[in-house]
Amino acid sequence: MKIALAQLNFHIGNFEYNFSIIEKSVADAKQQGADLVVFPELSVCGYPPRDFLEFEDFIEKCESVIERLKPLTSTIGIVVGCPVRNPKIEGKDLFNAAVLIYEQQVVGYAHKALLPTYDIFDEYRYFEPGTSFKTLPFKGKRLALTVCEDIWNVGNENPLYTHCPMDVLAQESPDCIINISASPFDHGQAARRIDVVRANTQLYQLPMFYANHVGAQTDLIFDGGSLVVNAEGIVFAELPYFEEALQVFDLEEVNAAQGLDKAHGEQPKEKMRLIHDALVKGVQDYFHKLGFQKAILGLSGGIDSAVTAIIAARALGAENVKCLLMPSAFSSDHSVDDSVELCKRAGIPYEIVPIAPMYDVFVEQLQPLMEGKPFDVTEENIQARVRGVTLMAMCNKHGYILLNTTNKSEAAVGYGTLYGDLCGGLAVLADVYKTEVYLLSEYINKDNEVIPRNIITKAPSAELRPGQKDQDTLPPYDLLDTILYQYIELRQSPADIIEAGFDAAIVRRTLRMVNKNEWKRFQMAPALRVSVKSFGMGRRLPIEGEYLT
Amino acid sequence: MKIALAQLNFHIGNFEYNFSIIEKSVADAKQQGADLVVFPELSVCGYPPRDFLEFEDFIEKCESVIERLKPLTSTIGIVVGCPVRNPKIEGKDLFNAAVLIYEQQVVGYAHKALLPTYDIFDEYRYFEPGTSFKTLPFKGKRLALTVCEDIWNVGNENPLYTHCPMDVLAQESPDCIINISASPFDHGQAARRIDVVRANTQLYQLPMFYANHVGAQTDLIFDGGSLVVNAEGIVFAELPYFEEALQVFDLEEVNAAQGLDKAHGEQPKEKMRLIHDALVKGVQDYFHKLGFQKAILGLSGGIDSAVTAIIAARALGAENVKCLLMPSAFSSDHSVDDSVELCKRAGIPYEIVPIAPMYDVFVEQLQPLMEGKPFDVTEENIQARVRGVTLMAMCNKHGYILLNTTNKSEAAVGYGTLYGDLCGGLAVLADVYKTEVYLLSEYINKDNEVIPRNIITKAPSAELRPGQKDQDTLPPYDLLDTILYQYIELRQSPADIIEAGFDAAIVRRTLRMVNKNEWKRFQMAPALRVSVKSFGMGRRLPIEGEYLT
Repeated sequence: MKIALAQLNFHIGNFEYNFSIIEKSVADAKQQGADLVVFPELSVCGYPPRDFLEFEDFIEKCESVIERLKPLTSTIGIVVGCPVRNPKIEGKDLFNAAVLIYEQQVVGYAHKALLPTYDIFDEYRYFEPGTSFKTLPFKGKRLALTVCEDIWNVGNENPLYTHCPMDVLAQESPDCIINISASPFDHGQAARRIDVVRANTQLYQLPMFYANHVGAQTDLIFDGGSLVVNAEGIVFAELPYFEEALQVFDLEEVNAAQGLDKAHGEQPKEKMRLIHDALVKGVQDYFHKLGFQKAILGLSGGIDSAVTAIIAARALGAENVKCLLMPSAFSSDHSVDDSVELCKRAGIPYEIVPIAPMYDVFVEQLQPLMEGKPFDVTEENIQARVRGVTLMAMCNKHGYILLNTTNKSEAAVGYGTLYGDLCGGLAVLADVYKTEVYLLSEYINKDNEVIPRNIITKAPSAELRPGQKDQDTLPPYDLLDTILYQYIELRQSPADIIEAGFDAAIVRRTLRMVNKNEWKRFQMAPALRVSVKSFGMGRRLPIEGEYLT
Repeated sequence: MKIALAQLNFHIGNFEYNFSIIEKSVADAKQQGADLVVFPELSVCGYPPRDFLEFEDFIEKCESVIERLKPLTSTIGIVVGCPVRNPKIEGKDLFNAAVLIYEQQVVGYAHKALLPTYDIFDEYRYFEPGTSFKTLPFKGKRLALTVCEDIWNVGNENPLYTHCPMDVLAQESPDCIINISASPFDHGQAARRIDVVRANTQLYQLPMFYANHVGAQTDLIFDGGSLVVNAEGIVFAELPYFEEALQVFDLEEVNAAQGLDKAHGEQPKEKMRLIHDALVKGVQDYFHKLGFQKAILGLSGGIDSAVTAIIAARALGAENVKCLLMPSAFSSDHSVDDSVELCKRAGIPYEIVPIAPMYDVFVEQLQPLMEGKPFDVTEENIQARVRGVTLMAMCNKHGYILLNTTNKSEAAVGYGTLYGDLCGGLAVLADVYKTEVYLLSEYINKDNEVIPRNIITKAPSAELRPGQKDQDTLPPYDLLDTILYQYIELRQSPADIIEAGFDAAIVRRTLRMVNKNEWKRFQMAPALRVSVKSFGMGRRLPIEGEYLT
């Protein structure tokens, strides 16, 4: 039996498009002799559909895709992901299902039983958990069909769940496990995914065919990396990251492949390469799916905007990126020079727009309202906001989309001006700590120095007052990032972090800054998610909370 | 037995404060002869604590409040809400519990079984559902202790749930039902709440003592309205809306009260009064809990900013509100006159800051970048954004918090400038449709004309180009709001709405505007929730979705 994995880039709610790419993959798989072609979780509607699932009309449109797929299945089976109705009145209205279609009929379902409801996942908001598990006969074989999280309770050892669907399915002696997933990227996820798939294959002594989404849905990036793992737990094949792929595998050949090297079939997994490729894909799909072509951003001469510019150029083509250099009276000479040099090296068009005239008129006009109070954060923010207005005017007049260049360290402690440098439709680096932005710049420069070295080596500064340096008000970034990681990713308490050897005053001040700035992050653009705990839907905290503030 | 209901305004994560108000209420209840004092759901930490629940340290702090409450209970019982640990490894780590403390011991728990995971609720993200239900003996009576949603599956007829805890508890012949709730306000919720409590009391022939939160937590407003309903289903008492209250009831007296009028004990429930009071409380608590005193907003001469100004003045005192009038070349004379008149009538300080100088310098400086393109939305938005920069400068210099004045109709269709008139820390009217804003202005004016009639009767206009009217680009508001309500609140499809008699082109255009502007709403301030479906945490839609766009 030949099984095809179709790792595609679906568009949420775009039923016509989703149907068309499924249809094409079915034809391709058929041509390559496949008996069965497997698509990812909720493939007919895209993932995550969120509250669209509450619209009856949306569900009907999902069902109509299934109807349109039936005629394609005279000789080939299709497994697609689709929300299907719960016939019982009690419980949630829908199941998150894998649907097996063959000979123009739906011949079986698997209802997802383990519904992730943590971090970015809200599945119990919409779905009733499946409770009965049956293998499905198909062309003389038995398929153990599962949906995503259903294989993540290996040996019933995941404390989140009380069921293990594969334990039930395994009793019916299936020939292989099929899993359809929507497994979003973070830089450690591909390795964890392989571990889990491997653990399943070894426990049940069965090969697994695992199809994942690829492509970004605003903040969530799906890396693909669909898998065929044999019963020995060896990766027979891992499909590429961040690109669509269709590949056909022979079950017998997979079973026969013994004694393979442990690293067989795996894609390379260096952290900075993964983050880089994820961000490029994230920018690309944001523009592509919203129907935009051109990005704009402000180049400050610092590392964050430089890295953002390069990622944008790689995602959209340098000719589709515009950089504005907007020096103020406090900008150092090298800020403009370094930015110009970057644009020249990368082939990115740029314009220089000094902000002094706009800044001056605000200061002058507002002077009667300022009651003689001295220069402070007000004037700093006016500079940042004048830049925001300038960039947004370019967006309005020429159809650019503004990219936000904030990094995760800044977003965490609120080091940024709302409606100023926090403007933008997409926050490219807001899940990348400052220390990681440096590593990313080195990765970008690995073959040739695209980012001028001076941008990487200079001391970080917002340049909003004379001689200002980030480190005047923030702890050094390597210290700051280490503390932030413990608090944000590991959710440790101040006491835990202090006990690990960090200065108590700095720890308390840092955590206070994080919690005090929830209001600011609430209004930030979606942040491309590359870590296990990104700002946005995966981290929900009260704005008015008085905890550690 | 005397039971006190303590309807208090807790502050999320502020354990010291929450303990102090519980302690004071226990003392007051004791002094009034109460045997038992009942506090709302998750009272020790405030509701909703959201992802703070994922911090071990936060849970320890909750537990420490319980420890500190024990010594207060020598002669009086306390029911408080608290997250408690799930001793089993499997499942979520916590229960959402009602804890009965008496004679310096925890003498019983009720673990919430029905975990709302829809709209603004995310309870299954954190909590394991309770599965065993026991009444608790207390001072010779048996208490059926329940948490919020647990009483919302009356007669097992709520399709969301498969359990009914009260069915189990009723078998042990309790003397009364106690319910601790965090039931957020919308303008129909108080009536629905009474219906549900009444249905329970009638079904089980038992009186119920129901304690609700009061006060706002950013976007979520809790109205109080705690209840005592007798076994006949008559409201013996309903505590006031939007204010703290402690009241002691004699169980025997409640049981003895027969043949009361059906409307006995109920608070008045006119929609506009409720919305008005909710918004005032929402503004008040946002400032109070974040430690701010003073609000600022831009007055355009239109009805939305006028109503927002009055609500702010009622919440914070007129002397703590500042209005900026920021006319442009396109502002009509009456805009400034009407706004000045409003400020005078309401006693709100104001300043007039013409924006022409800032607007002109932007247009002039950016002219080389505009490639000779004509006046369009760019220049409109520059006006709105210059106002945003001006207001935010006032915030930075003087410590004001900017109030956003957008209404729900505008927020729905994206009729507003991001980083311009969409600036602000809190969106006061963003869950109030334009047609409701008119009703609200009439309610505000019911005793005397605080809002000049001209502001109410003039045609709505953003005044960003000559002679502009909202109705040039939007359907008439009564039509628009009716369509929006069907789509947003009722989640009807375009086909449903068209079938109900609305023009197909207008319906499709309206729904397209709603779905196309998800990106803009994503960056909006939290909106005070007064309807069943508000923008924000209760409505989660993909930005890149291609559904009905």
